[in-house]
Amino acid sequence: MADEKPHCKVVLANNIAKGLFEEVHEGLKKIDRMPLLVGFLSSADPAARVYAEWTGKTASENGFAFELREVDRELLEDALIDANNDPKVDGIIVYYPIFGNRQDQYLQQILDISKDVEGLSHRYIFNMYQNIRFLDPENTKKSILPCTPLAVIKILEYLRIYNTILPYGNRLYGRTITVINRSEVVGRPLAALLANDGARVYSVDINDVQQFDRGQGLRKRRHEVTERPGWTLKDCLPLSDVVISGVPGDKYKVPLELLRDGAVCINFSSEKNFTPEVKEKASIYVPAIGKVTIAVLLRNLLRIVQNKIDSAAEESNKGSKDEAVQATS
Amino acid sequence: MADEKPHCKVVLANNIAKGLFEEVHEGLKKIDRMPLLVGFLSSADPAARVYAEWTGKTASENGFAFELREVDRELLEDALIDANNDPKVDGIIVYYPIFGNRQDQYLQQILDISKDVEGLSHRYIFNMYQNIRFLDPENTKKSILPCTPLAVIKILEYLRIYNTILPYGNRLYGRTITVINRSEVVGRPLAALLANDGARVYSVDINDVQQFDRGQGLRKRRHEVTERPGWTLKDCLPLSDVVISGVPGDKYKVPLELLRDGAVCINFSSEKNFTPEVKEKASIYVPAIGKVTIAVLLRNLLRIVQNKIDSAAEESNKGSKDEAVQATS
Repeated sequence: MADEKPHCKVVLANNIAKGLFEEVHEGLKKIDRMPLLVGFLSSADPAARVYAEWTGKTASENGFAFELREVDRELLEDALIDANNDPKVDGIIVYYPIFGNRQDQYLQQILDISKDVEGLSHRYIFNMYQNIRFLDPENTKKSILPCTPLAVIKILEYLRIYNTILPYGNRLYGRTITVINRSEVVGRPLAALLANDGARVYSVDINDVQQFDRGQGLRKRRHEVTERPGWTLKDCLPLSDVVISGVPGDKYKVPLELLRDGAVCINFSSEKNFTPEVKEKASIYVPAIGKVTIAVLLRNLLRIVQNKIDSAAEESNKGSKDEAVQATS
Repeated sequence: MADEKPHCKVVLANNIAKGLFEEVHEGLKKIDRMPLLVGFLSSADPAARVYAEWTGKTASENGFAFELREVDRELLEDALIDANNDPKVDGIIVYYPIFGNRQDQYLQQILDISKDVEGLSHRYIFNMYQNIRFLDPENTKKSILPCTPLAVIKILEYLRIYNTILPYGNRLYGRTITVINRSEVVGRPLAALLANDGARVYSVDINDVQQFDRGQGLRKRRHEVTERPGWTLKDCLPLSDVVISGVPGDKYKVPLELLRDGAVCINFSSEKNFTPEVKEKASIYVPAIGKVTIAVLLRNLLRIVQNKIDSAAEESNKGSKDEAVQATS
């Protein structure tokens, strides 16, 4: 019965996304209308158009209305302000790169946070780094997490890397994870999220290695970062149960000889950061995550719509209470 | 009496800053305490330390308290949050670069806007691009403008390029200005500010030329941007009354042969973007602007303190009105 050859389970994003889509369908049933997602395409990058069409198709297939607005990039700022102010628009996604420089980050902050399904607004990112999980002091409205990092979390949950025997917020305790990429959009937030859930994380970029841990003290409920001078992948890959890589371009390959036997390997680059031989060493391999990212985006949109409905209900509730007070006073 | 040789007036930042410092001293007299500016130094860049010491010295000489806090960059986010929450701290300045990547932009947005003397918070930048000049609907609290672009504006006012015969908000009407540099921190905001005041602006960077104009329509009270495909400095320098250059590094030099005779030339790079021969062609030359930038920073700090005092007065006023209402009801 014993199988001498190591075998690796390849898990496809489609299968992981299925559960998330079902969750979204359940949520949609409780809402009396079809939420509207508006995508803004001002990018000359053909990959942006492909992604726009793909989100549109997936949104439509899953019970959302989708509208693609192609806008000259010089008019985008005003178009976003209009969409912010339009009550018919529930969520907004902007396809970057547009200017390909810091003007893109300026544009990201124009979105009203109540419509930001990608979770890129400073307030959301700040909450994530600070491990603040709710938007309101009463802890009823969950903060939105950035899509791609959240997709990786959802994958780790699906793969049972999150251990549900452990208390919520501590379910990665004991895990060592290397994240190769430290961009502000994915790598760094992902490292912080994983550390906030209890993992030891090595965050690797072209310059250096940083270690992210969740501190223990009262003021340290969020991650703390320690520089690891002189460290490279040689030092952290052999220690890691999970290796998550997202280096852009088709040149980069994770050095498989450094992988621990049975490591879990996840690629979030649009190119393949792992060569096919990864299957000879990894226990689980997730070659791409795009479909999960879109599922998470629609889940964020649903959450935003639910938050809006809840707020409206509270307002009207408050209104009738006020009327009641007036009536009795 | 006629002087055949063209002569150029060289104007030094110190002289321009003098009037701004006097304005600040007048304002300080109306305040019963010494405002506290806290600088955060987490940068390994020696230029950041020099700038920190220079702001500190200038602040102290001009009636402000200054405190330099040297913080490990991994602890800076928490240190900024503490300073946000500390009522003794009136203004905060952070010396960049720190991480030298987009994490620096994340940190910029941590500052409470009521303490952001540099004017780098998204809300201030947004107001500037949208030509929204006040923070409150009653138009009593002026929005803060980013320091370096505002310093250039103040220089143009000093040099009478702003024509005070024209109505406020239109005082650059008829001027053509080239800005060489389109960074998010200086070049692009500066181009927008100049266009918002009525100038035609050519914004030049290594890739292309964009033309900034203030539109005329009701919805166009702010600048609009037109791409100028194929344009280079050859096309816009000969048209420009004013040339403002801020290219980093000591390699770049503005091609003087393209300058219009009698152009006004302003350098905001820390290096010299104009060779000394500029004096043979320009009517006015401002070789550096640093001192004006610091004067503007202290002016922003004063404005922030005044806004705070005004708000407190309103609150207490509102409080006593509420009491009065209660007493009479």
